[in-house]
Formats: sequence, C-alpha cells, structure tokens
Amino acid sequence: MGQPTRHVLGIDPGSVKTGYGVIAVGQGDPQHVASGVIQTGNGSFPERLLVIFDEIEAVIGTHAATEAAIEEVFVSRNVQSALKLGHARGAAICACARHALAVHEYTPRLIKQALVGGGGADKQQVAYMVRAILKLQQPLAEDASDALAVALAHVQHDRIRGLLQ
Amino acid sequence: MGQPTRHVLGIDPGSVKTGYGVIAVGQGDPQHVASGVIQTGNGSFPERLLVIFDEIEAVIGTHAATEAAIEEVFVSRNVQSALKLGHARGAAICACARHALAVHEYTPRLIKQALVGGGGADKQQVAYMVRAILKLQQPLAEDASDALAVALAHVQHDRIRGLLQ
Repeated sequence: MGQPTRHVLGIDPGSVKTGYGVIAVGQGDPQHVASGVIQTGNGSFPERLLVIFDEIEAVIGTHAATEAAIEEVFVSRNVQSALKLGHARGAAICACARHALAVHEYTPRLIKQALVGGGGADKQQVAYMVRAILKLQQPLAEDASDALAVALAHVQHDRIRGLLQ
Repeated sequence: MGQPTRHVLGIDPGSVKTGYGVIAVGQGDPQHVASGVIQTGNGSFPERLLVIFDEIEAVIGTHAATEAAIEEVFVSRNVQSALKLGHARGAAICACARHALAVHEYTPRLIKQALVGGGGADKQQVAYMVRAILKLQQPLAEDASDALAVALAHVQHDRIRGLLQ
C-alpha cells in the first residue's frame, strides 16, 4: 500500500472573486483535481462573505481536501483594501478551520521560487508553470491559476522540508 | 398583541478578544440579555478565527438574535492591523450571515452620537451610558461594553429612521 493521496486546496481570496484549486498528491506528479473562481455576486458585503465561506466548504467536501494553502499578505494598496482582503481571507480560512484543515501560508516570493525557481518571476511565467506541472491544455482563469500555484508551492516546500528532516 | 421582541446582537471584533452583547427591544426600554468577551485563545490564527465564528454562532443560537450591528472601520494604525481586524470581522460577519441576520454598520462617530449625543464623546462616557440605559449595576469588560454600545446605537438609529418615515 502506498501513501494515502493528499488533496491540497489552494485559495486565492478576494471579496469580488476568490480562486480555488485542488491538487492530488501521491507517489508521482501532482494531479489537477478541480479549480475555478467563486464569484461572490451582487449581494450585501456579509452575503458575499458567506458565499466565499459556503463555496469553500463545498469544495472541501466535494473534493475531500486534506490541507489548505493560501498566499500570505503583508502589503496592500491601502488600509481599505487591506480590510476588504482581510474579510475575504477570514471567511475562507474559517471554512478551512471548520473542517480541521491546516492552513499553510506562503509569501508571493516563495510561491514564485517554488514554481519558477526565481522570486522575481512574472505572473505569466507562474501561470505557464502551473499548466505545465499539472499537464493542463486549457488556459485557466487567473484566480484559479493563482490558487493552484499556492497549492503546488505548498507541496514543493513540504517535499523540501521532508528531505531536510 | 404587541410587536415581537427583537434581539439585537452587537459585536466588537478583534483577533485577540471579540466583545458581544445582546439586547432585547420591545415596547419599553431596551433590556440587557447577555454580554461578554470571546477570548480567541492560543491556537493558530485559523483556529482563533474559528473560535470567533463558533462563539458568535453560539450566541446567535442561545439568545435568538434577530439582527446584528457592528462598528464600521475606515482607519487603522497600518495595513497589518487592518488585515488582522478584517479577518476577525470576516469571521464574525460570516457567522451572522450564515444565520440570515442582517448586519448593520455604524461609524464610531454615529455610535457616540446615539449614546451620548456628541460624536466626540470619550470611551468612559459611552461606557457610562451603556450601563445607565441598560440599568446595569456591574461594570462591564470594555469589549462587551463596546459591543452593547453598537447594538444600542442601532436601535436608536432604527427608531429615528422609523420616525422619519
């Protein structure tokens, strides 16, 4: 019997659009399970946060996610956008914690390093590598691609941590 | 038969401590139902957000809250504290939205005006008025008092809106 397959959920939260991506990690290369963009809709701000919470819960349930990864945020254009992003992240992280998923955070720099080998890579290079690693033919929505990127970065950093131990 | 009693939940969110207060609003003066401070504990940040979410859900259920009020935030010391506060607010607002509670937001200035009659009142004056209006003998924890203050402000502004219509 091999190692049980892990299902890593990557999340790219935002109050208007929240990207998600699930990858399966077993013996070989990581496999794409699902990805997409949650549109939070035209409701009130609380209703939109609930959409994020509910949809992330649904993704966790449907795809049996075992752990989560999310981009760490240090900077923001201003206090107002930091507050908005904080609310969206809070909703997504709550949904993960409610299902006892550990939530791993990675800086944009670490995500780029894991995928492209350089912390200064541009968005297109990261998106290209996401599709290459997961052998996807179709282009991905940007938020879905960013969510898969943080999931892949988590897997890679996990492997390195494993090798170092 | 009189109007059904409303139970207004006020929330003062924070990632370390989140204050809450429930007041009953019927024919006469508003009545204190419950108030307290949720300590988010020493767990990971996701676990602490889940404590806020779970405890606010519990308060809503136990005290049959019918609507919620929360302080509106525009400013923050810096982006990092705005992000943290955003997460805590997101967790609390999600819990309210999950129970279909409308979440009303009031600026600190409107809260002070509603309770003390001046937008420049200090915290002690507001705390004093919270206890006076609710006829409470015991002093309240600061976060619980702030949560009751926004609940009372909502009731007052609601009455004024009602009179104007």
